[in-house]
Amino acid sequence: MTDTVTLKPDALHSRVVAILTKAGFHAAQAAAIARVIVAGERDACKSHGIYRIEGVLRTVKAGKVRPDVVPKLAQSEASAIVKVDAKGGFSNAAFELGVPVLAERARHFGIAALAINDCTHFAALWPEVEALTDQGLAGFAMCPSYATVAPAGGTAPLLGTNPFAFGWPRIDNPPYVFDFATSVAARGEIELHRRAGKSLPEGWAIDAAGQPTTDPQAALAGAMLPFGGHKGSAIGTMIELLAGIMIGDFTSREALDYLGSTAFAPRHGELVVAFSPEAFASGRPGDPFARAEVLFEAIAGQGARLPSQRRFTARARAEKDGIPLTAAEVQQLDRLLELGLDAVS
Amino acid sequence: MTDTVTLKPDALHSRVVAILTKAGFHAAQAAAIARVIVAGERDACKSHGIYRIEGVLRTVKAGKVRPDVVPKLAQSEASAIVKVDAKGGFSNAAFELGVPVLAERARHFGIAALAINDCTHFAALWPEVEALTDQGLAGFAMCPSYATVAPAGGTAPLLGTNPFAFGWPRIDNPPYVFDFATSVAARGEIELHRRAGKSLPEGWAIDAAGQPTTDPQAALAGAMLPFGGHKGSAIGTMIELLAGIMIGDFTSREALDYLGSTAFAPRHGELVVAFSPEAFASGRPGDPFARAEVLFEAIAGQGARLPSQRRFTARARAEKDGIPLTAAEVQQLDRLLELGLDAVS
Repeated sequence: MTDTVTLKPDALHSRVVAILTKAGFHAAQAAAIARVIVAGERDACKSHGIYRIEGVLRTVKAGKVRPDVVPKLAQSEASAIVKVDAKGGFSNAAFELGVPVLAERARHFGIAALAINDCTHFAALWPEVEALTDQGLAGFAMCPSYATVAPAGGTAPLLGTNPFAFGWPRIDNPPYVFDFATSVAARGEIELHRRAGKSLPEGWAIDAAGQPTTDPQAALAGAMLPFGGHKGSAIGTMIELLAGIMIGDFTSREALDYLGSTAFAPRHGELVVAFSPEAFASGRPGDPFARAEVLFEAIAGQGARLPSQRRFTARARAEKDGIPLTAAEVQQLDRLLELGLDAVS
Repeated sequence: MTDTVTLKPDALHSRVVAILTKAGFHAAQAAAIARVIVAGERDACKSHGIYRIEGVLRTVKAGKVRPDVVPKLAQSEASAIVKVDAKGGFSNAAFELGVPVLAERARHFGIAALAINDCTHFAALWPEVEALTDQGLAGFAMCPSYATVAPAGGTAPLLGTNPFAFGWPRIDNPPYVFDFATSVAARGEIELHRRAGKSLPEGWAIDAAGQPTTDPQAALAGAMLPFGGHKGSAIGTMIELLAGIMIGDFTSREALDYLGSTAFAPRHGELVVAFSPEAFASGRPGDPFARAEVLFEAIAGQGARLPSQRRFTARARAEKDGIPLTAAEVQQLDRLLELGLDAVS
C-alpha cells in the first residue's frame, strides 16, 4: 500500500510524547500515556491507539484532567494495599508508579491491591494486567466508567460499561489476558450502527422509556444493557462497589455528574489486585504455570479461541516489521503536534 | 396446609447433625454442613437444603469424601494468604476454621485470601460471602466444579459451572450478595426440562458433536454453554486458573476424572478473597457503607431487583415463624436418620 508509513514503536512513542508535551503534559504522564497508545497501535487495537489522542486533548482543554501533575505514592509498609493519588491526572503514570510496589507486596504477602484515586481513565486495562503478568503475577483490574448502562430489570442509565481485565502469566507464550466491558456492547459499537443506519441486535439497549429497542438513536438516548443479563449486571455493580465506593472514588453516576458529558475520558478510581501464584501454590503438588498450559491447550485444542490472540499476532508482526500507519494518520499526528490544544474544540 | 410441619432452625439443625453423625461425620464437619443446609431451608433455597443430604451420603458411601477428618489450618503470620487443608472432607468445616483468620488478616493487611484445599464442595457459596459481610468485610468466593461446560467457541465439556459469589455488608439491611454459576444455566435446570419433556431455550447447550441443541437429552450428553458468551467463558476460565490451578488443586476436568461421575459432590479447592472497606476507604472522603446505600437505592428505585432479596424475605419469615417442611420431607429426615448410609445406593 503506497499510502502506508511504517514506524518503529520507539519512533511512534517519541511522536506521541512530543504531542502530549506540547499540550502541557508533565514528562511522567506523557511517557506513560504514550506507552499505552503505542501498545494499542502495535497490537492493531486501533480503538485504543492514536485515535485517542484527540480525546485526551479535549479532556485537557475542558479542564477535566490535569496534565501537569505528578502522581504520589502513599507508602504503608504493613499493608497489602498500595495507594496512589493521581492528583487529577490520567491513570497511566499513577499505575506505573504503583505497579512495582504492588508486585513487591504481592510477592511478600501473596496477594496485594493497588488503588488509584482521582485519576482520569485512559484506554484499556489490558496493558495493566500485562504489567502484572510480565512480573510473573496473576491479577485483575477494574474501574467504573460513566452511567450509560441500566442494571438488569431497570429502566435508566446507572452503571458504567465498567471494564474487567484479567491476566495469567505464561512461560513461552504471551500471557492469558482478557479485558471486556460489562455492558453487552461498547458505546462506540452503538454509535457505529447509528452512522451505518443499521439496527442493533436485540438485547443491547433500552430506550429512554426503559423499553427494549433496536434503534441506535433511541439506544443512545436510553441505556445500554449489561452482558449476560442479571449476572453481568451483578458484576458491573460489584465494580461500582469495589473500584468506586470502596476506594473512596466516583461511581459511574458521580463521574457523569462531574463531567456532564461522555465526550471526555471518565474520571474515577481504579482497583488492581495481584496474586503470586508461587505463594498460593507453595507446598501443593504440581507447577501452576505448567498446569495452566494443559488447560490452555485443551481450550485451543477444541477450536475455541484464547482471548487476545489477535492482539498478540499483530504485536509479533509490529515488533518485527514496525507499526503501519496510513498517510492520513501521520498527517493527523503532525497536525496535533503543530496545533496542540488548538487542534480540538 | 395440614401436611406442613414448622421447625425452628435450631431443631432442624439438630436433626441434620444427628443424620450426619450417624453417617460417620466428625462433629466439626457435621455441624458446619448442617448450618449450610439449615440456611438453605431457612432462605427457601430448597435446592441447597435437606434435599442435598442424600448426595452427601452418596458421596461418603462411594468413598469420594472423608467424613471423619478434621481440617487443619496452616499458620503463616507474615502472609495475607490463609491456607486450610480440608484433608478430603467437605469444605464447610474448613471454611469455618479459616474465616476468622481470613477476617483478621483482611483487617490487618487490607486484603487477604483464604485457599481451601482437598475439599469436597457442598452447596452454595453465598453462606461463605455472608460470613464475610457479617464481619463488615466485602469479598468474593469461587471454585471449579466438574467439566460439564464448553468454552465459548468450543465443542466439548472442559470448564465447570464454576460459581462466583460476592458480598458487600450493609448496615440496616441484609448484605448485597450474589452467587451464580458461570454457565448459562445450572445442570439441574436442564435435567428439569428433560423430565418435563420441554425444549431448552437456545444458547444453553451443545450436543456431543458440538452443535447447538435445544434437546435436553442431547445437551446432557454434550456440554452446557457459559453465560454471556466469550465473557462468561473467560470468567469461568479465570476461576479454573485462580481457584484450581493457582492454589494447587483440581481443575474441573481433573475433578471429573477423579470422581468419574457428576453424581457425587465435586472434589476440588476453593478461593475466597476478603477486602476491608475501611482500610481501602481510609483517608478518602465519604463513608463507603453510606455511599453504597445510595447505589442500592438507585438500583431498586428504577424497579430492578437487588440479588438475593427473595432469600432474605424467606429468611425473615423463617426467623419469625420457623421453617416449613412437608410431612414427606420430615419422613425423609426420619428415614435418613434410621438408615444412615443404607438409605442411599
